[in-house]
Amino acid sequence: MLVVSLMRLDDQETRLQDAFPHVDFKFYKHPSQLPEEVQQQMDVLISYHPEVDVAFIENAPNLKWIAWYATGVNRLPFETLKKREIQLTNAGGVHAQQLTEFLFAYILDDYKELKAIYEEQQARIYNHKRVTPSVKDQSILFLGTGKIPQRAAQVAQTIGMKTIGLNTTGHAADHFNETYPISERQHVYKKADIVVNLLPETADTRYLLTAEDFKAMNQHTLLVNLGRGTIAKEAVIVDSLKNKSIRKAYLDVFEQEPLASDSKLYQLDNVFLTPHISGSHVDNKKLATDIFSNNLKSFLNNGNLIENKVNIDRGY
Amino acid sequence: MLVVSLMRLDDQETRLQDAFPHVDFKFYKHPSQLPEEVQQQMDVLISYHPEVDVAFIENAPNLKWIAWYATGVNRLPFETLKKREIQLTNAGGVHAQQLTEFLFAYILDDYKELKAIYEEQQARIYNHKRVTPSVKDQSILFLGTGKIPQRAAQVAQTIGMKTIGLNTTGHAADHFNETYPISERQHVYKKADIVVNLLPETADTRYLLTAEDFKAMNQHTLLVNLGRGTIAKEAVIVDSLKNKSIRKAYLDVFEQEPLASDSKLYQLDNVFLTPHISGSHVDNKKLATDIFSNNLKSFLNNGNLIENKVNIDRGY
Repeated sequence: MLVVSLMRLDDQETRLQDAFPHVDFKFYKHPSQLPEEVQQQMDVLISYHPEVDVAFIENAPNLKWIAWYATGVNRLPFETLKKREIQLTNAGGVHAQQLTEFLFAYILDDYKELKAIYEEQQARIYNHKRVTPSVKDQSILFLGTGKIPQRAAQVAQTIGMKTIGLNTTGHAADHFNETYPISERQHVYKKADIVVNLLPETADTRYLLTAEDFKAMNQHTLLVNLGRGTIAKEAVIVDSLKNKSIRKAYLDVFEQEPLASDSKLYQLDNVFLTPHISGSHVDNKKLATDIFSNNLKSFLNNGNLIENKVNIDRGY
Repeated sequence: MLVVSLMRLDDQETRLQDAFPHVDFKFYKHPSQLPEEVQQQMDVLISYHPEVDVAFIENAPNLKWIAWYATGVNRLPFETLKKREIQLTNAGGVHAQQLTEFLFAYILDDYKELKAIYEEQQARIYNHKRVTPSVKDQSILFLGTGKIPQRAAQVAQTIGMKTIGLNTTGHAADHFNETYPISERQHVYKKADIVVNLLPETADTRYLLTAEDFKAMNQHTLLVNLGRGTIAKEAVIVDSLKNKSIRKAYLDVFEQEPLASDSKLYQLDNVFLTPHISGSHVDNKKLATDIFSNNLKSFLNNGNLIENKVNIDRGY
């Protein structure tokens, strides 16, 4: 059994070697360093590198399982995986904690008016009259009700907010006060003070949100995008913010990444931009390897993967 | 029964009049508008104005209960209240939600490095390599374990932090993983990544924290003061931040308020200052009136107050 990682896993490498002494592990810093004969022989691949495409997989005839060390699997060639019956797992859930922290950093930065207060501090102004709005009883609407939104919704409920979720069928989910089918979203927006996108990128979610969506939201809406930048065209988001269809946005993901320095988003004063870092964590490799180890144990036993299996037909 | 308020209570005035038709309510915008004969006759006083001092109370011979519409009662003349057997209630707990929101706004602003990220946004720098620390498994130490710290500790636990509390005897409190007597605090600081003061001002807490306290903390400590500014001399806090005995502070309360524009705090780059606004809320009057109504019902029945009674010997 040959397991190849297209990145170095630091202290997780000896952890894996110690836990699975009969498995042959090879760790490379970059896909370009992978010898062709190793690619030909490998059974399992650890990566989240964009070089893993149709040609790469065709040159790995023995490959049975890709352990994707990120959550978004949208760049992978699903048709090829299906044809070859290659199983796919992702690191979904690993980022839940960091994403939740960024979400509440954004929301509280906005509601507690920290930027304006900091500007007053710089000017040595002591404005004791400021009364900031509370997040209590505010309604937060999540696009997506999977592991990450559930974790975020749990914190939202504890801090006193009402949680609403949108998913394919409107099925109930933990920590959500209400859920609706995403097809009915334009009737649901009016219930929300905050709209958060945490959807994965799939054929169904790509450019899901149009100008009509933003027009259907409350004008005081705070938008947070922590999912994928392709949920809406950048121009649509820029227009909605410029026209005040919505009040403000905190964006961590963009239609084109890295964000170009001449992006119109940089010209707006009602947007806060973070450079797709909300899922980054010093412990991500450890957490993803926790999932991988559980799966490898089962895979060696009976060929089955038990955690974070991606349904290739569904795309997440 | 004559109830006098030294401030206008907006829509809460008709609420009280409707609920208690046999009580005579008088609402004034400012203590200076109170006629002497009304002061002579009043049974109950609603206020949190500094003019309520020994002389004021001596001119209110009929006064039996002061309903203080703030949490901190430290400015009231306790000896006079005791001698006259005047009961005292406060608005403790009313501010728990807002204070909790500010606390996590501060902590997440710091941990998610929002200020540095915002400066990069202004410079159109897309720094995808930034990895921010997580609050997960961080230890947060609260000075005080009353209603407000308990609410804050509940949110801290949900977001994945470990909570430690200091109180008079070290007794257990809801939502605290560990509690210790405040007298042992200098041995407890080393367990903490974040230290939060939420203590009321009393003779025992005034200038409780000295340079020794800050030296006993971890150098990476984040200090948050949402209690009272007199917990430490301003000069001690300034020195501790300047000498890097602690890493950074978020301060909402100050030894002298309003903070003078020549305060040395303004010269530091590792401090974030908010102008004693963390408890302010548009709904504060309503929430304080909820407590007052419950107490008034009981007071009319049998002379007893049932909620938020201040123990005058203890001072909170």
